Parts: sequence; C-alpha cells; structure tokens
Amino acid sequence: MSASLSRPPRVGVWLVGARGSVATTVVAGCAAVVAGLRPPTGLVTEAPAFAGSGLPALSSLVFGGHDTTDCPLPKRAEQLAAGGVLPLGLPAAVAAELAAADTEIRPGGPLPGDTRDEDALIAAFAADLQDFVRRLGLERAVVVNVASTEPAPTGPPLPPSSLYAAAALRAGCPYINFTPSTGLHHPGLAPLAAASGLPYAGRDGKTGQTLLRSVLGPMFAQRALDVRAWSGTNLLGGGDGASLADPAAAAAKNAGKERVLADTLGTTPEGQVHIDDVPALGDWKTAWDHVAFDGFLGTRMVLQTIWQGCDSALAAPLVLDLARLVARAHETGLRGPLAELAFFFKDPVGDAPSALGEQYAELVRFAQGLGEGE
Amino acid sequence: MSASLSRPPRVGVWLVGARGSVATTVVAGCAAVVAGLRPPTGLVTEAPAFAGSGLPALSSLVFGGHDTTDCPLPKRAEQLAAGGVLPLGLPAAVAAELAAADTEIRPGGPLPGDTRDEDALIAAFAADLQDFVRRLGLERAVVVNVASTEPAPTGPPLPPSSLYAAAALRAGCPYINFTPSTGLHHPGLAPLAAASGLPYAGRDGKTGQTLLRSVLGPMFAQRALDVRAWSGTNLLGGGDGASLADPAAAAAKNAGKERVLADTLGTTPEGQVHIDDVPALGDWKTAWDHVAFDGFLGTRMVLQTIWQGCDSALAAPLVLDLARLVARAHETGLRGPLAELAFFFKDPVGDAPSALGEQYAELVRFAQGLGEGE
Amino acid sequence: MSASLSRPPRVGVWLVGARGSVATTVVAGCAAVVAGLRPPTGLVTEAPAFAGSGLPALSSLVFGGHDTTDCPLPKRAEQLAAGGVLPLGLPAAVAAELAAADTEIRPGGPLPGDTRDEDALIAAFAADLQDFVRRLGLERAVVVNVASTEPAPTGPPLPPSSLYAAAALRAGCPYINFTPSTGLHHPGLAPLAAASGLPYAGRDGKTGQTLLRSVLGPMFAQRALDVRAWSGTNLLGGGDGASLADPAAAAAKNAGKERVLADTLGTTPEGQVHIDDVPALGDWKTAWDHVAFDGFLGTRMVLQTIWQGCDSALAAPLVLDLARLVARAHETGLRGPLAELAFFFKDPVGDAPSALGEQYAELVRFAQGLGEGE
Amino acid sequence: MSASLSRPPRVGVWLVGARGSVATTVVAGCAAVVAGLRPPTGLVTEAPAFAGSGLPALSSLVFGGHDTTDCPLPKRAEQLAAGGVLPLGLPAAVAAELAAADTEIRPGGPLPGDTRDEDALIAAFAADLQDFVRRLGLERAVVVNVASTEPAPTGPPLPPSSLYAAAALRAGCPYINFTPSTGLHHPGLAPLAAASGLPYAGRDGKTGQTLLRSVLGPMFAQRALDVRAWSGTNLLGGGDGASLADPAAAAAKNAGKERVLADTLGTTPEGQVHIDDVPALGDWKTAWDHVAFDGFLGTRMVLQTIWQGCDSALAAPLVLDLARLVARAHETGLRGPLAELAFFFKDPVGDAPSALGEQYAELVRFAQGLGEGE
Repeated sequence: MSASLSRPPRVGVWLVGARGSVATTVVAGCAAVVAGLRPPTGLVTEAPAFAGSGLPALSSLVFGGHDTTDCPLPKRAEQLAAGGVLPLGLPAAVAAELAAADTEIRPGGPLPGDTRDEDALIAAFAADLQDFVRRLGLERAVVVNVASTEPAPTGPPLPPSSLYAAAALRAGCPYINFTPSTGLHHPGLAPLAAASGLPYAGRDGKTGQTLLRSVLGPMFAQRALDVRAWSGTNLLGGGDGASLADPAAAAAKNAGKERVLADTLGTTPEGQVHIDDVPALGDWKTAWDHVAFDGFLGTRMVLQTIWQGCDSALAAPLVLDLARLVARAHETGLRGPLAELAFFFKDPVGDAPSALGEQYAELVRFAQGLGEGE
Repeated sequence: MSASLSRPPRVGVWLVGARGSVATTVVAGCAAVVAGLRPPTGLVTEAPAFAGSGLPALSSLVFGGHDTTDCPLPKRAEQLAAGGVLPLGLPAAVAAELAAADTEIRPGGPLPGDTRDEDALIAAFAADLQDFVRRLGLERAVVVNVASTEPAPTGPPLPPSSLYAAAALRAGCPYINFTPSTGLHHPGLAPLAAASGLPYAGRDGKTGQTLLRSVLGPMFAQRALDVRAWSGTNLLGGGDGASLADPAAAAAKNAGKERVLADTLGTTPEGQVHIDDVPALGDWKTAWDHVAFDGFLGTRMVLQTIWQGCDSALAAPLVLDLARLVARAHETGLRGPLAELAFFFKDPVGDAPSALGEQYAELVRFAQGLGEGE
Repeated sequence: MSASLSRPPRVGVWLVGARGSVATTVVAGCAAVVAGLRPPTGLVTEAPAFAGSGLPALSSLVFGGHDTTDCPLPKRAEQLAAGGVLPLGLPAAVAAELAAADTEIRPGGPLPGDTRDEDALIAAFAADLQDFVRRLGLERAVVVNVASTEPAPTGPPLPPSSLYAAAALRAGCPYINFTPSTGLHHPGLAPLAAASGLPYAGRDGKTGQTLLRSVLGPMFAQRALDVRAWSGTNLLGGGDGASLADPAAAAAKNAGKERVLADTLGTTPEGQVHIDDVPALGDWKTAWDHVAFDGFLGTRMVLQTIWQGCDSALAAPLVLDLARLVARAHETGLRGPLAELAFFFKDPVGDAPSALGEQYAELVRFAQGLGEGE
Repeated sequence: MSASLSRPPRVGVWLVGARGSVATTVVAGCAAVVAGLRPPTGLVTEAPAFAGSGLPALSSLVFGGHDTTDCPLPKRAEQLAAGGVLPLGLPAAVAAELAAADTEIRPGGPLPGDTRDEDALIAAFAADLQDFVRRLGLERAVVVNVASTEPAPTGPPLPPSSLYAAAALRAGCPYINFTPSTGLHHPGLAPLAAASGLPYAGRDGKTGQTLLRSVLGPMFAQRALDVRAWSGTNLLGGGDGASLADPAAAAAKNAGKERVLADTLGTTPEGQVHIDDVPALGDWKTAWDHVAFDGFLGTRMVLQTIWQGCDSALAAPLVLDLARLVARAHETGLRGPLAELAFFFKDPVGDAPSALGEQYAELVRFAQGLGEGE
C-alpha cells in the first residue's frame, strides 16, 4: 500500500444474505474488534504470521449487501444478543456501525412475483454493487455469500446464489462462497469466471464437524488405523437447520463432509451423516461423530466427538479473514480459484490438501506471498 | 542391505517388561502379520512412505527381554485373547513364535531381597543382552521399555527403568523408552548416553488422549480460538491403571499430556487430568476430554471427545515401528536423541514440533533420510 | 406345581427366527445358566421378588422354532462367540443343548416361490407347533417372535409375522412379539385373538435407547423441567441394522420410541430418531440421545446419553423372562393382552404406565399374583 | 388456611448464603414467576399433584438471610444475567423485589477477628431471625442453607453451617440444608433438634449427576444388569467449584453420591468421582458419568451420560419447593426429620427409598397428607 495516502483505502465487503445471523455477527463483530471492545478471537488473519501480508485492516472494511428480508441490522443484533450469540450490550455499543451497514443493504431476489429474467436480475445486482463501490469511494469490494443454503439446482436455470455470483463477476468483484449453495459452481458460469480475471474462493465454510474431521482423518491415516465406519448427526436450529433439513440442500453439504473423509483416509468408510432441524437450539449446533476403527490385529476401538458451537460466531471471523485475503489477492493481481484458501472450506476450489495442518501451512505460504513486494 | 547375504540379518528387540500385555501383543502381532494372518493395521512403518528407508523387515525381528514375573508368553497370550485384546485363535496360530520369545526372557530386577548393587545389576542386565545378540547371531538389538510405569524417583539412586537403560548403553544397544518412567532421563545417565554414541528415543508412547490433543490443540490454535479449560479423565484397568493411580506415577504421565497443550496452544488452559484405576475395564481404556473454548466475541463453545481403546493394541504396533526405525538409525550411524520420532511420544526427546501433522512430516523426512545411500 | 410329579413338567419356547442372533443367545445362554457356567445376569425373573411366582424353571425350558435359513445353531453360536456376543468356549460347553434345539427348528416361510395361501401356511406352522408339544410331551409352549423386523404392511394380506401369530393361536399357544413387526397387531387377527382365550404380550423389546428414555422422561417430568427437543441416533449392524435402515421398518420402531416420550413428558418435544445400518458394528449398537431442556426461568441445559450395547445379550434374557411369565400366566388361566408386562416393551399391549419404575412395580405385583394359590 | 384473613399470611424464607448465586436466583426467580414474567418451569410444587396441599403461595414468600459478603442483590443479579444464568432484562424487571430482600440480609459469620463464642454467634443469628419474623409480621419462617460448601469438620467446635442451624432451632424455625455442609448433622445438635419439635430436611440438593444416578441405578437393578464400575467427573466453576476442589469439602458431597449407587444397586461398584474447579465455566457445570456393566453371559456394555446444567437454575426452584413444603409441614405440626422429602436430596434425612420414582411417589403422598383437613 502506498504510504502517501492520507487515509488508507477502504475495501467493501458485500454480503449476500446481509440481514442473516452470520452477516449481522460479521458487521457487529468487526466493529467491536476495531473499537477494542473485544479481542480478535477467532480471526485467523490477526495471527502474527499474517502481519506482513498487506491485508486490508479491519478498520478499513465497509459493509453492504443484498437480502430479501427487511429486519434492520440493529434489531437483528438485539435478537442475537438475546440468544447469546452476541455479548450483552454489544448491539448498543456498535449501533452506529450497524446502522451504517443497514443503509447499504439492497433488496435481493428474485422474490415471488418478480418477472425479471436472469439477465435483468444479474444486471440489477451488479448495479447495486457498482453503486456501492463508487458512491463510497471504495478501492474494491468482495462479494461473500452467507445466505441460507438453497436446494441443489436440478436444471439449467441459475439458482439465486449463481445470480449473485454472476453479478459479482459483472461488477468486477472477487467472489467468495461461504455456503454449500451453487454460486460459481454452475456450468453456465465457468466461462464467465475464467474470462473475468478475478480471484474467487469457496465453498462451504468449515466450522464444526468437518473442521474436526479434517484433523482427525489425517490422524487415523498417519497412524495406519483402519476406519471402518464414521457416522455423524448434526442438530441445528435457526434458518440453517430448516434449510438443511431439506434433503436436497443437505446433499451438497454432505458431499463436502464426505469428501474430507475420503481424501484424508484414502477410503470411504461406512456411515451416514444426518442434519436435523431442531428449532429449539436457535443459533447453536451440536454435532456428534462416532468413529469405529480397527487397530492392530483388528481390535475394535471407538472415538466419539461432540461439538457444541454457535454457528454465527464460528463463521463470522472466517468471513472477515476471507474478505481480507481475497481483497488482497485481487489487489496483487491473482486470478482464478484460490485453492490456497482450502483451510476455510469443506469443499475447496482447485487442487488442495485435505488435512487441516497442510492447509494451514499452505495458507501461511500464500499469505506470505501476498506480502512480497510490499 | 547387501544383496549378497543368503539370508537377511536379524535384529533383536529386547523388551523390558517382556511378559506384559504390550510385549505379548508385540510378539504375537508381529508373528501374525509376518504370517499373513492379519493385515498390518496400525503399523506406521508399513505405509508406502517408509518403503525405501531400509528398515529391517518384520520377519527379521527376534524377541527377548527382561521381566520380574514368570507367566509364560503363550499363557499370557491366551489371557489377552480371552479379554478381547488378541483375536480368538491367534495365540494357537503363533504358539511357536511365542514359545521362542519366551525362551529368551531373563529375570529382571531388582526383586525384594536382591542384594546386588546398581553396578552389579546393570552388568547382569547388559550381559543378558550381549548373550542374546551373540548367541542368536543378531546384527544388533534395540532395547524397548514397555514395563509398568514406576513412581517418579525421589533421589539419586537409579530407578529400575534407569538400570535397564544403563545396561542398554553398556551393551551397545540403542534404547527406546515407551513409558513415562525415568529410563535415560536421569541426571546420572546423561554423560553415559552422550558418550555412548548410540541413538535413543522416548518417552511415553502417545496412544490415546494425548494423540488426540496433538491434533486438536493445533486446530484450536490455527483457528485462533481461545481455549479456556481443557479437562480430562482417563479410566483404565490392567496393570497400567493400578500403576498410574499412584499420584507419583501419574505425575510424569500428566506432565507429558500438559506439555502438548501448552506447546500447541501457546498457553496453559485451566483444567486437570485424572487417571483412575478401574480394574473392571481390563486392558481397555476410556478417555474423556472436555474443552471449553471462546470463539468470536467471546462466545463460549465446547468440544468433548471420548476415546475407547485397547492400550496394548494401540501400543504394540508403535513399538514395532520404533524398533525398526531406531535399529535402522543405529545402522546408519545416527547417535543421540532422535527428536524426529516425536510423532510417537507424549514427551519427546530433543527439540520437536508438538503438532501431530508436523511430527508426521518430520518422521517421513527422517525415514527418507535413512534410505539414502541404499 | 404338584410335588407328586417325578419330574417337573417341561415348557416349550418356540422361537420365530430360531437361527438368529437373539434366538441363538437365548438357547446357549439358558443352557449356560442352568449348568452354572454363568450367573443369571440380566434375567429379571431370577430376582428374589419372583421366587414365589411359580414360574417354570430355566431347566424346564425346551427350545424349537421356525426359520427360513439353515445355518446350524452350533455354527451360529461360534459366529457369535467370534464377535464377542457369546463368551469364548461357551458354544463348545453347551454344544449338546444347541444341537438339541437345532433338531427342533422347522422351515419358516413363505419363501419365494411358495404357492401356499395364507391358511395353508398358518396350518403348516400350527402343525409344527403341535407336533413339537406332543412329541416332546410338553406341558405347553409359548411362541416368541424374535425374527428380523419386517416392513410395516401396507394392505390386507397378513405379513409373515402375523402368519406365525395366527399359527400360535390355532395351536393354542400364548404369543409374545419381541419385535416391532405386526404379529397379532393386525386387524384381521383381533377377533381370533379375543376368541382364543390365550394370553399374549408385546411388542418390541425395550433394550436400549427406549429403556433409557423410560427412566429419563419421568425424571424430567417429575422435576418439572421443560424438554424442548429430544433427538436420537442409533447405529447398529447385524441383520437388525439392515432391516431398520428401511424407512418402512423403522417407522414402527420409532413410533414406539416416541410414544414413550409423549407419555412420560406429557408433550411431544422436537427432534428426530435415526436408525443407521452400520455393518461394521456387527451385533453391537450405539445410541446417542441429545435432550435440550429448559430449567428455571428458561435457562437452557442439555443431557446427552451414549448407550453401547450388544443387542442379542440385551434381548435374550428378556425373552427368557417373558417366556416364563407368559407360560405361567397361561397356566393360571389368564387371557388377553398382558399389559402388566409393559416393563419389557417399547409399545406395550393394553393400558400401562410408561415410566419404567411404575412398570416394574406393576410387574412385581403381577408376578406375585401368579404365585397366589401355589 | 383460614378464609377469614383479609390477606394471606406471609411466610419468611431465610437464606444462609443470601448473596450467593442460588439465593439470588431464588429471589429473582420467585418474583419473575409471581409476576407472570416466566412460567414455573422447574418448580415441582406447581404441578397439579400439589394443588390441594395448602402450600404457601409463591406470592406469600418474603426473603431475607445471612451472608458474609456485601454485594447488593441487584448487582449480583446483573452479574448472573451477564453469565446467562438469569434472563436478560430480568434483574431490571424485578429490581424492587431484589432490593426488598437486600434490606433483609444481615451479616453472617464468624468473620476473621470475630471474638464472639459459639453461643453468642447463635444468639445473634437467632435474634436476626426473630426480628425478621416479628418486624415483618410473618406467620413463620424457614431457614435454608444455600451457602458454599464448607470443609468437613474435624473436631467438636461447631462449623458455621451448624451455628446457623442451631440459631434456626433457637428461633423456632424449621431448617433445610440444601448443601453437603454439616448443618444439623452435628452430634452436638442432635438433642437440640429432637427437643425443638421442629421439622427439618436435608441434605445436599440433588441437581445433576446424582439426580441421574437415582434413576439410572434402579434401571440397572430392575433389569438385573451387573454394574461393574461407575466413574464420574464433575467440572464446575463459580464458588462451588472452588469449595469442592478442596478434598475435605468434596468428601461429604461424594459420600452422598456414592450412597445413591450403593442403595439402588445393592452393591458398590468400582470407580471414583472427581470434582474439578474450572473457573472458566462460571455457574455452569458438566458431569460425565461412565458406567461399565455386564449383561447376559457377562457381555460388557457401557452407558455414558453428560449433563450440562446451570447450578443455580437447577437449585433455585427446589429451594422454593422445599421452603413451601417445610413451612406447610410446620404449620400442620409435623416434627423431626422429613424423610418424605428425599426426592430433593443426595443424602436424605431419615429412612427413605433411593430410587427417584419411589421418592416422587412418596413426596406426592406426603403432599396429599399435608392437604388433608384443609
């Protein structure tokens, strides 16, 4: 970054699903950390290894986005605080930042009754983005999909997540898919993505069961233990629980989960993965995993794990990390799929290792590369 | 290895605690795998990455050792089969190999009433070792301590594990401490170890709770999650349960467990570790871990793990791996502490990374180095 | 029982699914306990409270049954011993009893290609039963269904379990349905059951998750805690896993599980129950339950349970208990649904309490009533 | 209660440890339920079975107590709300009731430097109580010990909990010991208790692990399963964690826990109980139990339970239940140990069943007896 600027350039973070739990936590949490109200727990890119990478500062991030609902962000934040997702008093402390982001949220779509065709929707979304960048004088903006998981598409029409992804390309913005929805993974978008010269990353943030699997799978493999069955059940409330209880939506998510096992173990063990919608759990999720494995001479042993986490609190810092990394990648001229960000995803783009430790090493190398020439 | 030999050189594996569960499983299991009765599950060194390292073949290993009890190995094997540790029918199938090893077991000590002083005991043990190597025409022998954990020593006299370690040095044999007992970690033995020119490794095989911690600790650290408390309880029967219920014996073991957390997390979280003797569990152990951690904005989350394993089945293949690696290291002229074997230990000698993934990478590099010049 | 008899009368136990894991464990286990090789662990009716009930002695039970496969019982028993379900050496020790039962197993059906109509099948099965009683000079015989769970029937034709139940009625034998299959619960059999004057019991033995729920549900209710969601996952291998992975078969089983919660809690909480077929688990099953409940002032709390059991070892003693109790009920002239045996079932016949403690109290009262007049 | 009173008589609840988490939750929670802000979840005595028992209404309860600290109740309530123990906004909504109770809290003791002897302390505490009753025109008051657990006493001097208990006797107030501290269980107090003609109850509220054990123990016994080892670990923060990490304090608590197993199982299984102080958990506690049991033919099975609860939220409604029941028992002239309240305690006074279901049945009978003659 040029030292001659009187103030550092600002970077836009455009959230698809901008009024959801994750997006609200992103906006409120970024403001809280910038203000020094909270330590940067959970923010990977605040570790010393990333200090020289030239990443945009958290204080330089400006938020906007699309959503189809209209609950104001300050109110959403109060709801999250009541549910224990945000600390008490935080919504009030960052009310100004929430309100500022709220004014930059534009209607998403298509809603029922919307007669616009695909191209018109893409054009409208892209115009929203370009307006955001221009009006606020942003150096660049990255688009991050944090909307509820949509059912796997069954035909050629672009699902909503792909419309937003296409809009990002058209507006010249790097794209990050934090969900298992289609986004850029649509055959109709592949040539556009390639031609855009933009970097992109995804998909499906690794925040719980799969995160664990990406360290436990390599452990079994390195110890030459024979995993016979790996079974899992996820209980989650909130919008995500309802979305993923739909078998079509769960299918995409589960594919990512199973890929991690197959890649790290070298075989596909027996066992299923269930995703249950349990509204009483609110924004909290519980994942139980049962791993039956054979040791020396075939002796049967079992590992079980229980992960009790808050989905938004797990996802939000990773969204900030990704926005910073991809914005910087764009700045340095990188293009195409960023396989080096596999650390963050269940189903990473490009060719990447599956073991978390190797993914982390690759991420650090990538970040150091971003800083060269600074 | 020279192709001109009509038969490959044989390598001795001298087990301190040769009639225990681990040693019996080592002998029976090696025979079963050599005979093709069982796949090499759990044997790290049978992975392709180790194929070119020049390790002694499993079929070239010859077993002997010291013990203070006199239950014959074939009978111990039957007991283990009755407890589900060895497969049904295996003791009969490898009866010849068990009997052969049984004839190479010499009385350990000191037993109550033994009036020999330290030097006489060391000399006697070293003579047993040298006789084993000479009489059977072995190329070399490695000594592995798999005896029950002894209380932490309180004064200058050498504890039994250190007497055996000193005997290994005197007999010119590399030494591996698979237990948390003192072994070579005695100030009185440091100069001898340095002067011996022998390689050595240890200590305390990483077979359950600490194995898990060595992959979960790095996961928390890489994700910048703030581990506030890590509590654990181990239930185990068998001789190990009784030994470790002694707080003095448990102290050494727990130090290793906590070191892994401190090293991988960068801080020492709250929480204790308990080791309970539960004879009804026999050779099986259960470890429960409870990890309370804070995520973004301080949101509290919890991971729990339950590991149900068979101690002997977890330890035995690692003992074989270590014997092969250290024998080969000796052959190639390596000396001193083998920090590159940290993958196997809770409390590794030398300066080594604490994350299992890094330890594995280092192990593979080490093994490849062993093969150079073949 | 009359003291003038030179030998006590013998009672037949006719097992539908006589070559399955449960039936094999019933026959081998009864012999082992009678011979004093094993204590009567798991046998409810060996408790002192049942001493005066006039139940037939275990030594008086004689086994036979129907099955559609032909693996001999002694061989099945060896398979179970290899899987850890039966103790090592037990099959050999009770080989005579296994062989004796094996000779009393008749072909079940209908097998593919069988052209007999319903009535012919019922008549054939009833004839097998009558022949068993007459030929062996049995005082009476009870029929117990321990066959794999069949899919819920969709129409008027009688499913196999109902054919066997009808045969029991025709042969004058009390009937016990230990599975969730239809058995006597078919509208076409209701008048026959009523007219038969026979006692009957069922259905679906309560051996794991539902057993736990029947004590935990009342605990929550008595403490006025508000259970918001009760979710469960069952992993099981063996034939039962495969049968119940079929949603139609699982439906019947899950209905029983949910009835227990609704009855004991007074409401139906959120949450699903999954039954996964995991062949690698063999005869072992694992059930995880996650209970999210609200305490005082709505504070959210969680109970989780993990039950790791061996299905055959859990079911077999209850089958013996039920056979003894129902045989004695028949002897004393009881008829119709035996609601007092709800202690044993997920989905009991008649009107019975759902809390295990109350069911046990009722069982003891029932058993004491059986003994009056002795 | 007489219908001629213009307003119902008021009943005092005198809390020893009146500024602690439990006491604060008692006062705030009672007010919240009375005001209709929250449903009576967790209050056993609000169930229909207790409707005719003549218990004092929640709205008739008046709170006071002793404590050695001076943090005002409204502030304590805010702290609890920040920790998730009380709902957000509740402290403000019941600020008046908290303030009213705060004015009725008197200094406890003895504090360091206090030179009063035992009798002077007892007299002072009794005077506080009598003043409370007289000044507020209460019909009666019950004393409930909810202070932190004290170390088991080692000699004749009365520990503080016994001083308060003696003061209750002297002031003519029924006494309830909700903690494992000594209270009335001191040989020096037995004759006083007997002579007082007052009813009393205790000790050690059953709110988590032992509550579970009191339903699981009977389940194993009724099913004739052979429990071989029952091991448990409790993690808790807050003041209770620190108190109970002291082995002397834990001893009393663990004795109660083990008594439940011995009484319900008929034998004492192997296994230990640990209580760890984990300050990071705040007012939350986690209890893990591991039960190794043998089924039919000795087949080993395992049940594990994990209870994650909020200690204050579990205890507070039971304190209200007990205060109401014991006040009514006093009104009806009952005296001596109230064994019928065993449902609430780990280590109940008098001769009582250990199974929770039987305890509940006895409680309901007791409550119905209280209502007779109304």
